[in-house]
Order: sequence, then structure tokens, then C-alpha cells
Amino acid sequence: MALSTQPYKGARDFYPEDKRLQKYMFKTLRKVAERYGYEEYDAPILEPLEIYLAKSGEEIVNEQTYVFEDRGGRKVVIRPEMTPTVSRMVAGKRQELVYPLRWYSIPNLWRYERPQRGRLREHWQLNVDIFGVADSSAEIEIISLVDDVFKEYGASTGMYQIKLNDRQLVNYILREYLSLDEQAAYSVSKLIDRMNKLERSVFLGQLDDILSDQQKQSGAAEKLVAILDTKSIADLPQAIKESGKVTALEATLSALRAAGIQNAVYDPTLMRGFDYYTGIVFEVFDTDPENNRAMLGGGRYDGLVGLFGVEPVPTVGFGWGDVTLSQFLISHKLVPELKPEVDVAIVSTGDIQSEVAAIAAQLRKQELNVAVDLSGKKLGDQLKNAEKRGLDWVLVIGENEIKSGVLTLKYLPEHVEVKVALTDVRSAIQDK
Amino acid sequence: MALSTQPYKGARDFYPEDKRLQKYMFKTLRKVAERYGYEEYDAPILEPLEIYLAKSGEEIVNEQTYVFEDRGGRKVVIRPEMTPTVSRMVAGKRQELVYPLRWYSIPNLWRYERPQRGRLREHWQLNVDIFGVADSSAEIEIISLVDDVFKEYGASTGMYQIKLNDRQLVNYILREYLSLDEQAAYSVSKLIDRMNKLERSVFLGQLDDILSDQQKQSGAAEKLVAILDTKSIADLPQAIKESGKVTALEATLSALRAAGIQNAVYDPTLMRGFDYYTGIVFEVFDTDPENNRAMLGGGRYDGLVGLFGVEPVPTVGFGWGDVTLSQFLISHKLVPELKPEVDVAIVSTGDIQSEVAAIAAQLRKQELNVAVDLSGKKLGDQLKNAEKRGLDWVLVIGENEIKSGVLTLKYLPEHVEVKVALTDVRSAIQDK
Repeated sequence: MALSTQPYKGARDFYPEDKRLQKYMFKTLRKVAERYGYEEYDAPILEPLEIYLAKSGEEIVNEQTYVFEDRGGRKVVIRPEMTPTVSRMVAGKRQELVYPLRWYSIPNLWRYERPQRGRLREHWQLNVDIFGVADSSAEIEIISLVDDVFKEYGASTGMYQIKLNDRQLVNYILREYLSLDEQAAYSVSKLIDRMNKLERSVFLGQLDDILSDQQKQSGAAEKLVAILDTKSIADLPQAIKESGKVTALEATLSALRAAGIQNAVYDPTLMRGFDYYTGIVFEVFDTDPENNRAMLGGGRYDGLVGLFGVEPVPTVGFGWGDVTLSQFLISHKLVPELKPEVDVAIVSTGDIQSEVAAIAAQLRKQELNVAVDLSGKKLGDQLKNAEKRGLDWVLVIGENEIKSGVLTLKYLPEHVEVKVALTDVRSAIQDK
Repeated sequence: MALSTQPYKGARDFYPEDKRLQKYMFKTLRKVAERYGYEEYDAPILEPLEIYLAKSGEEIVNEQTYVFEDRGGRKVVIRPEMTPTVSRMVAGKRQELVYPLRWYSIPNLWRYERPQRGRLREHWQLNVDIFGVADSSAEIEIISLVDDVFKEYGASTGMYQIKLNDRQLVNYILREYLSLDEQAAYSVSKLIDRMNKLERSVFLGQLDDILSDQQKQSGAAEKLVAILDTKSIADLPQAIKESGKVTALEATLSALRAAGIQNAVYDPTLMRGFDYYTGIVFEVFDTDPENNRAMLGGGRYDGLVGLFGVEPVPTVGFGWGDVTLSQFLISHKLVPELKPEVDVAIVSTGDIQSEVAAIAAQLRKQELNVAVDLSGKKLGDQLKNAEKRGLDWVLVIGENEIKSGVLTLKYLPEHVEVKVALTDVRSAIQDK
């Protein structure tokens, strides 16, 4: 029986036309990250299971990881996220590294989940992290960088919205303001994380299930709902505003506005799935109603590096997946025309293979990307192939051209041609 | 107990200084592949087990793969090589694609083996393949491309040697010239593949074990050893030279010489581990005696695409691993100085965070890569950090500089500084 030509379920093949889009996306991500002084790192796609058990959140480890035993009996995971890995690497050279440390990477990540729009089993994710800055200048820089990436893609402010919350504020609201015990507070935070996928009545029913009778009688449910419906920090209850827990959020939002970023807002329903966040968290939403979901998210996680037995390092970072990014670029028509990286194809006829090879070699020395048609087909078919590939320039060579030194250079988009010497091919192409 | 900071055994963390070398290597590989008209593709790192069982060779699948069952009960493999994957992809669009098809990729690959010099469990590998060319112009182009990569790295001809053989010639020698049956011929070919790792006496002993009494009496062992010791096609026995099985090799070697590639030779001991090769095979060796092993290899495999239920496509390709390549570049002193991609660091003192952020934003708009020191440390310590990171340029800003508009720009390698306006920073750096 013939083997299947399909890729593994939920993962993608990147044919050259798909890869061109990915390369365009990644080039821009790298450019902006480096503009802010971030340096690229990388790590193995396999990690020991233990580094995820500590802090990633139960659902991800128990239900969604690719975990298996290697031939030596070690439990290993195909990484579902990069944050534990980068924390491990920073911990490994804690003393030698220079802070603030700015690192980025574009790893591929795997999660075992039901493939659906915007969620696949394999995706690539830009990860950007700054280590060693305890105050909100780190959050401000990271969110400014995200905003610059959008601008570099040509996005306008109305196409996306930046939502912020603070885990310390959430903890204060749940534990102090609503007096929930630790278990109830954790369950409620997980429920809020899911609330945008739930009908309001289902959300209220599940909230009711979590709260004790005493908590309900104190009005915790109503107070919580009122807070979750709040649109700005100014509208929060006075006790919360005076708690000192809104300071970092206010400083960050105000600095972002000063930097010209007008589409950043406080969102009390924003949680982020991972358990490791310790301060400000943020997500960026596509405002297209067809695609209205978080494209990327991140926040402050000051505790992860410390899990590796060294002194903790304050950290802010985010991950931005390629699937949601490409949907954003496509739906907002922000993808430029992307052609093959071939400058000129050579089509030829006659027994002149070695002469054609020599001409190709000379053009390559002039830094042109040259594809020689070695198919042995008729000239007309070779020309059709170049057109089918979407190439612009074709150099036609036969025995007469070799003798005379005069070559025919065709510009396919306009069906025109010029006669040129070999030494003039490069300038003819570049002057167009 | 604290978690370990070590990467998974046999795999590497790429700290920014390591990643810079990898990026330099890959940039050159991409540049030369594109110079020959090859387009980049990619695919998931997980593949179904079946596609390796067919043709990769028993040792690799049974002993060296990372194979496991996913949560849906599918047997999957973390790819140990890219050739079955690319064959699957070509088969999947067999009819739509334009030939000759030129594709390249730089995937990471996994093999479970004992880590040793030049062999790790995870490595990256440039894969370059040309599909749809049945004659030796494909081999000539592929080997010329490899040679151009070496030249692009600055390598000279004496640093490496290109060795060629032909599977059809090997089959003819074993099956026809030595009259071995299929099983004996397969075992002998696998033994020859290992022979450079064996003492001559051990090789002869194992050869003796494989051959039947009748085969030994016919002098097969002595004839084979004589052939394996041959240094050129001209020195092969007359019957072999007249078999028609040396034609492709001779044409390829002669075209390579005509193209100025003098370090390509015939090597009768060259086999390549994979079972799927059908014609010419080649490997490139580092001539450094400290590092004298195959850096890369490839050949013609005309049968793989056909395994996926479509008409076969003639194919020539190679894989070039990053581990052996980096050893080659380092041992031959071909690695240029690689610095962080930061153009200028900003160090500052005083309560001027938003002014500093605005200055950094303006410099970034001028396409400078700017790292702001947000550590809050003393100015002297911030300067030391920039030096420790190996940065060249530092912009020093305090409250006076904000007031006067005159900034101090330091060039660390020469311990000099100039006073500049913000608008002159870029040209001061670029004119150096």
C-alpha cells in the first residue's frame, strides 16, 4: 500500500510559497526584536518533564503535552512553551550573564489538542524576554516592542487592542477584597480565564458552584461580577484603588500613552493560562470580528529562574504564535507580494551544457540567483515553466548565442526581450 | 530539590554567542542555495513511523529513532533525517510542481545515539535536493553548489576532499563481477560502509564470515580488496570499466574538473548508510587529520517519491550537518568575529526614564539597534556592563544632557568619546 502524503495531523507542511510568508513574518519579528537590543538564543526541542510540572499549569502538562520515555528511560517532553526552557538557560549561567539581559527566540512548540482555527498541534512562537528589571520599565519596553512589530507590518492602531491586568491586583481582589480562601481563589481565577468562551449564565452557575454559602452570603459573586464588568481602573471600588495594587498598571498604561500607544486598556477579565505569572499580564487582540481572539500574550514572571536553585531574576516576556499572526496579516491585507528568490532562469537548447554551466557560474559570481532549467524539455516548455513559477527574468541560450556572445533576456511580466552581452545581464535586470 | 539547568543529554543550548555562529553558518548556506535557484521549505518535526520503515535502513529505525505513541495511539517519530519528508511533500503535489524542482531546508533532526565528537542527538542539517533531472547534470550542479559553499566560507581546496562512488557500480561489482547473491551483497555493502572504522584484519575476518565457501574459493575476497584499494576509475579491472557502469561517474568527475573543482575523486569504499540511494553517492571529508571524517554526504535516490503512490521522480540531494560544519570552520580558523547585533547601548542617570525612552525610539526609527540599560545601577556599572557584553558604542545621558541636547557618545574599543546632538548619533557611528 502506498504511504500517505499528508503531514502529521494538526501540523503543517511549508511548501516554498508557505515558507516565504513565514520567512517574511520572522524577518520582521527578528528585525524589531534586534532594534530593541534583543539577542537570539535557541535550545533543544526536548526537555525533561520536571521543568513543566513545577509551574506551567495542570491542563497543559497532563492533557496537552507530547510526553514519552526515551530509550534510556528518561521522561521527556516535546516543549509546549519556551518559558521554562529560557528560565533554565538563564539559571545555568546566572552569575556570568549581564543584566538587563534581552533574549529572543522563534522556537516551534507542540501541544496535543484538537486542531481548530488558530490552534494547531505545532506552531512557531516568537519569545521575547527581558531579565533583571524589577520595575515597570520592563513591561513598558516589552509592550512598546510588540506595538512596533505591528507598525512594522503596516498595521494601524484600530486593527488591534492591547489589554492589561496585574496578577497581584487579581490576587488582592480575590483573597483580600472578596476574602476567598486559596483554593476558591485559584478556581475562580481559572473560571475567569475561560469566561469569554462561556455564556454569562453558565459562568454564573460555575461561580456559584465554587463559592461557599458563607462567601455567597457576603455578596462575593455580585462584587466580582461588578469588577469584571469594569472598563477602567478609575471605575474600580475605592478600596481596591487605594490598595497600592494598581500602581504598576497605572504607571505602565500612562507611559504607553506617552509613547503614543493609544490602544492599551485595563481588562479585569484577563488572566493568562500559565500559573507562573507574578505581576502585570497582557494580551493583544485582533479587532476583526471574524478573528476576535488573543494573538499573543505575556507578562511578568519573577519566580521561574529561581526554581533552578539560583537567586530569582525578575522577568517580563511574551510569546507570539505564527498561526494567529498570519491570520491577522492575511485578514487585514498586510501581506506584501512574495516572489521566489530567483533573479533569472536560464533556458537552453543544444549540446551546450558545460557552456551554460559556465555562464550560470559567472552570473552567480555577480551575486545573482540563477536557476538553470536542466529538464531537457523543448525551449517553449522551459519558458512556460519559468512563467508558471512566477519568475520575472529568463535568459535564453542556444548554440548561436554561445557563438555570437549575444544573449536574449526576456522580461516575462511584460512579454518583452532585449539582446545583451553576458556582462550586461546584471545591470539590465537591476535597472528595470 | 532544585531542577537541573542542563539541556537534554546530547543536545545543545544555544546561548546568544553560540546562536551567532549558527546564524552565520546558516546565512551562508541559504545564500549559496538561493544563488543556485533553490527555494526553502519546511515540515513538521513529527512524522508517522511508516515513512522511515520503507527505506531508511534498519539500524537507523530500530536503534536510533525517537519513536513513541501519541495520545491518539499513532506511532510517530521525531525525524532522524529529512529525505523521507521531502519525498512525501513532493509526492503530495507531484502533478502541480514545476520541474526541475529545487528545494532546500535547514531542519533539526534527532537520533538516539551515544553522544561523541561530531555526533550529537540533535543536530541541524542543510538539505538540498533537485527533483526531475535524470542525467548527471543534477549531480554536477549539486556538487558545484557544495563546493561554492566551502568557497563562500573562505575555505581553500586543500582543506576538504570530495569523494564519489556509484551505487549502480557497487551493485555491478558485488552481484555481477563477484557473483554474490542478494543477501551477501547487502551484508558486504554494509561492511564496506563500516570499514574505515575497522582494523584491516577485523574487516577481513568479517568479510570471511559473510562469504560462502564457494564465494571464497572463487577469489571474491581478494578481488574485492583489490577494488577497494583502487584510487581511480582507470585502475579498475577491465571488465568493470567496460560494463557501462562507470559512465555517470566519469562524466560527473570530468565536468567538475572543467568547472575548476580539482579535489573530487572516485572512492570505491564510499557507501553511505541509507538504503535508498540508486546512483552516484558522494561525501566531503575534512582533510584536517584531527577531524578526518565525512562532513556531509548525499547522492541520487530516484525511488523515494514513488513510495507515496505516484510516478517516481529522479532526485539528487545531500545533507550537511551543523556540528561537523562548525568543527571544520573552527579548526580551519574560518569563523569571522561575530558581535552582538546591538549598534548602541544607552546608559543613563537621573529621573529621566521617559526622555530616555523617547531618545531610544528616535534612534530606532533611524534603523539603529538600541539597548537601554534599565538596571538602575550606577553609571560606571552600566558602562562596565556594556563593555562586558562586547558592545562598541555607548550613549551617555543625564539630566544635563537632556537640558542641553548635547549627548556623550563613547567608542569603547578605543576609549574615546565625542559630544553629539541626537540627530548626529547615527552618522557618528556609521562613519567610524
